[in-house]
Parts: sequence; C-alpha cells; structure tokens
Amino acid sequence: MVRFFADPKDFLAKSVKLSDEDSKHIRTLRLRPDERFIVCDGNGNDHVCRLGERGDGTFADIIEKRKSTGEPSVACNIFIAFSKGDRLDFAVQKSVELGVREIILFESDRCVAVPNDIPKKVARLQRIAFETAKQSGRGIIPKISSGGHYKSILDEVLNISALSILFYECEDRLHIKDVLEQHFPIDKMQIDDDRPISLITGPEGGFEAHEVDLAKSKGIKIVSLGSRVLRSETAPVAALAAIMYHTGNL
Amino acid sequence: MVRFFADPKDFLAKSVKLSDEDSKHIRTLRLRPDERFIVCDGNGNDHVCRLGERGDGTFADIIEKRKSTGEPSVACNIFIAFSKGDRLDFAVQKSVELGVREIILFESDRCVAVPNDIPKKVARLQRIAFETAKQSGRGIIPKISSGGHYKSILDEVLNISALSILFYECEDRLHIKDVLEQHFPIDKMQIDDDRPISLITGPEGGFEAHEVDLAKSKGIKIVSLGSRVLRSETAPVAALAAIMYHTGNL
Repeated sequence: MVRFFADPKDFLAKSVKLSDEDSKHIRTLRLRPDERFIVCDGNGNDHVCRLGERGDGTFADIIEKRKSTGEPSVACNIFIAFSKGDRLDFAVQKSVELGVREIILFESDRCVAVPNDIPKKVARLQRIAFETAKQSGRGIIPKISSGGHYKSILDEVLNISALSILFYECEDRLHIKDVLEQHFPIDKMQIDDDRPISLITGPEGGFEAHEVDLAKSKGIKIVSLGSRVLRSETAPVAALAAIMYHTGNL
Repeated sequence: MVRFFADPKDFLAKSVKLSDEDSKHIRTLRLRPDERFIVCDGNGNDHVCRLGERGDGTFADIIEKRKSTGEPSVACNIFIAFSKGDRLDFAVQKSVELGVREIILFESDRCVAVPNDIPKKVARLQRIAFETAKQSGRGIIPKISSGGHYKSILDEVLNISALSILFYECEDRLHIKDVLEQHFPIDKMQIDDDRPISLITGPEGGFEAHEVDLAKSKGIKIVSLGSRVLRSETAPVAALAAIMYHTGNL
C-alpha cells in the first residue's frame, strides 16, 4: 500500500487531513474510491485509509488503526562525524532503512568538511530521512540534528544510552559481537530497556587517539569493526546492520 | 601503510615490478628510501616492501611476505540484479569493503535498467572494486562479472555454493538469522567448507513470484531481511554485514 506521514495534530476521530504535497501526490495516483493507503502518525501508528468524501485528496477517512510493523524492537541512535560530499546522505538513507531511531551529527578534530551552514545541511538530511522513512515503511521519521563538538556529545551519549559504543580502526581486540553478546545474552534476548544503544563513528580520517581516550575514560566501549578499513559512511551502516541482526530485527 | 596490488607474474624472488600507475603514485608520495609499503599479489599475500635501488618506483624490494589480514574466514558471493543509476556502484563498493569474494550481475524480469553495453558497465564496476580493495586492505580484488539471465545463474549458484539464499520482500517467516544459525551452529563455528555462501538479490521492483518459485524448487532458501523495505542496493550490503557479523568477521 502507498504510504504517507501526517502530523499527529492533523488526525481527527475518523479522518486525517493530508499535507498539500501528499494531496497532490494522491491526485496523480488516481486512486479508486475504495483503494486503501496508509497514513502514519510518526509515533509508530499506521492508519489504513481511503479517500475522503470530497475525493480531492485533502482528507482521508480512517478505516483501521494499527501498530506500524516497520519499527525494530531495539532503539539505536547514531552519532556520526561530519564528512565530505554525499557520504552523510548515504549514511542517513541506509541507516533509516535499517531502523535507526535518531542521528546526531558532530564535529571532531579530524573533520575536514564541517558545513558553513549547518542548519541547511541538517534540513537536507532530514528531508532524506523523511523520504526514506516513507519508502521503507518506518513508523517514525528519525530525527536528524547537530550536536556540536565531539566533547559535548559524549556526556549526552552517556546520559541517554543503555550501551555506548565508539568504533575505532586501531582497536583490534574488542569486537562488536563481544559487546552485543554481553549486553544481549542469547538466552534472554528480550529487550526490556527502552534506552537506546548509541553508536559513535568518526570522520574520513578517523578519531584522534586523545578523543578515543576521552571516550574510554567515560566508560564508552571502544570497538573494532573487523580487519578491513570501512569508509566513514559504511561503518555506521554495517554496525547498525549487525545490531539489527543480533536482536532479531533483520 | 600505503597499499598496492601487483600481478602475481610481476613478483620476482626478492622484488616486484610495479605498474606504471602505481610507480607514478609512489613518486607523488615522495617516500623516504627506508619507508615501507605493502604490495599485495591479489591471492591473499601481502609483501612488505621498500623502494628498489633505482628509487624511481618501478621496482620495490620485498622485505617480508605475510598473509593478508583483510580476508574474511568465510567466502561470500553476491548475485545482484541490474539496477538504475549508481545503485550498483554503491553495492559493489560497500560489498568489497565488507569482504565479498565475487559479484555476479544478472538480468531478471523486473529489471528496468539493463545496460546496452554490459562489458563497459562491468569494467567500470571492476575499477570500483579494485580501488575499494586497495583502500579497505583486501588481500584479493573481488571479481565482477555478468552472468546473463536469472534462470541461467540459478544452476551456477547451486553448483558452486555451500548455501544459497534469495532475499524476497514478500517472505515473512524465514529470516537470515534462522538460516545462518542452522548452517553455522554457534557451538561449532569453525568454517571448514571453502565453497561460498551465495546471496541473490533482486532489482528495484523485486522478483516476480514465479522467479522465486523457481529458486525454491531448486532448493535455494527464500529469506526475509526484516520488516522494513530495503532498497535494491541496500539489501545485499545488509545481508553481507549480517553474515560477516555472524561468522566473526566484523
């Protein structure tokens, strides 16, 4: 079924007001009056709908409300350093497909490409997250934001997370599998902690040793992603796929 | 250390002849005479080298030969349908980073973008595989080829593989975790079968039901990648990450 998002305030008891953009889209689809589509409230609820009485796509009648099936059982946030070119576009799109909850951008010592206009960059990535959430059947629109400098995000990570992992290419002992097996033992995979797992990944040139030491001193796990060098946009996606796999969400 | 590939025939007893391109690259790096770099033979062997006597970068002296560390313990081939735009560029780059052994392209019923000049497309993707293998520290250059039509690749898949998996978005019972846990039980993860695991992923529009039925009738596992819709270039990468994670290669 075709899928749209609407703001929770636009849901009435038995109908929902669609955005101008979605109304236009619905008109181009030339849906039959009985044809169904989904309007999601972005809070994990799907509403099965059909065109409202006026038939012009401005309102949809709600037939049934149900939980979105696209949300994973584990909350996972990614803290990712600013990178060059379209690397972040890629990281955002793939992470949203794979079920990320929130993405927070930050600046670290080796960042070579911090945008001059950060709000514009964030807005562009939020648009990618929105489109991808629609296409991949998510029940939320993952939020994209900028968290400032590396040092200032570390305390946020620690405050909100059930488990915090920083990926470092010079680490070769502790692997992501070790950390996940310890955190989610296979004999009790039930996930009853709704605080997120937070993943932290660096820019093209990686982290400085002192940045890694700082994270380690705060209790963040410093973890390898294997013996191959992953690009800055690949590391968060591979890590997220591993977590979704481990927790039965892939 | 900087990393190059050379053809096995260019290795002599104590030195290796570098390609013109790599010689030029080495000159731009202005290496000191004692500075070391790696020349890999593409068969899983790294040779630690320094500049040869002539110092012009045409030959390198071999100091030490050792096994490449970038090769995973499991061989994994990906059969991927032709897709639009740069989707295959992405799939090839990320799969090489994550440790794929070989990528075979094919045409299926819903392919909307089979290139007119397939050898040119394959050559372009092989170039991406080569560059990515260098950057990510691989011990081989994964081969890219075209396998023709879907029907003709299925028999190849079955002939060569220890395990064959086709990903289908309409499957919702069998998950990749079920299949991998059955194939590699955790109590005996030793991988002593050197035949590859073969993954088959479809084009933008997915597979036709009759294509899936055909694979199923031949004994290929039909598997879900979770409740979110993954794009055609994301599915093979997520599946490969899962396999590398499961087998201790991430």
